[in-house]
Amino acid sequence: MSGMSVFRTPIASEWIDYNQHLRDAYYSLIFSLATDALMDRIGLDEAYRTRTRCTLYTLEMHIHFLHEVKDTDVVEVSVRILGTDRKRIHAAFDMYCGRYPDPVSTAEMMLLHVYQGTEPKAQAFPPEVAEALGKMEPAGATEIPGSRRMELRSRS
Amino acid sequence: MSGMSVFRTPIASEWIDYNQHLRDAYYSLIFSLATDALMDRIGLDEAYRTRTRCTLYTLEMHIHFLHEVKDTDVVEVSVRILGTDRKRIHAAFDMYCGRYPDPVSTAEMMLLHVYQGTEPKAQAFPPEVAEALGKMEPAGATEIPGSRRMELRSRS
Repeated sequence: MSGMSVFRTPIASEWIDYNQHLRDAYYSLIFSLATDALMDRIGLDEAYRTRTRCTLYTLEMHIHFLHEVKDTDVVEVSVRILGTDRKRIHAAFDMYCGRYPDPVSTAEMMLLHVYQGTEPKAQAFPPEVAEALGKMEPAGATEIPGSRRMELRSRS
Repeated sequence: MSGMSVFRTPIASEWIDYNQHLRDAYYSLIFSLATDALMDRIGLDEAYRTRTRCTLYTLEMHIHFLHEVKDTDVVEVSVRILGTDRKRIHAAFDMYCGRYPDPVSTAEMMLLHVYQGTEPKAQAFPPEVAEALGKMEPAGATEIPGSRRMELRSRS
């Protein structure tokens, strides 16, 4: 497993569709819950969100479905930070289950830090969150398995 | 609205997250249910699936989140067939709600026709499905709003 493991879940029976495997959208839900777990790790947890009215919005999500997941599986999700700017996180998630050595699914996410006022407004990360993100970012170039690169163009 | 409207749903309260808007993964679920509706339109309905043991698997899904959706919204999804080969469909979905003239979200999907034997195996569409798909495919080039193109490289 590459990256930091952040989330683990058994497969709920209501996530299985008429094809007798995990419905595509519930891979997304697992990646979404893994994003929540990442937020807890970098200081964007519930207490932060309540105190600051800031949170993350997902701008873009690109998923590859590589293996079927069954209702008897337990899946684990790891995350790598591919890039950040003042307000955004570009992250890659890999989902594993015990039956395969390679990921059953990969996701790329572009996440935006937002202040939820009357209108939601992009806002820079506070220094402690930027620092936590900096520690997670790899020094060199990273390879994204199974996915084409979504670019984080600088506009900060 | 561009494309053919295939699916409409109110927003279920359990799809709303701690940000008080539709969780990213439930945009995926709505696009997934719209794919089921598309399958009904092109002859890949439940009767077909039971008779032939063939179905569609999602290979790839790329979503852009353009506007927040709230629990009071009703959303409608339209679909355009961007390309097909003997076994695959490349489709673009646009999600609308009454509060915005432009889509609240767009999704691209790459779908594979699969025979569910002991092991799932890609299989060519039957002629009547290929014909139904052909009728939906636009004659000229199509523009994909808000999304970079995922390419359907010919390997059929």
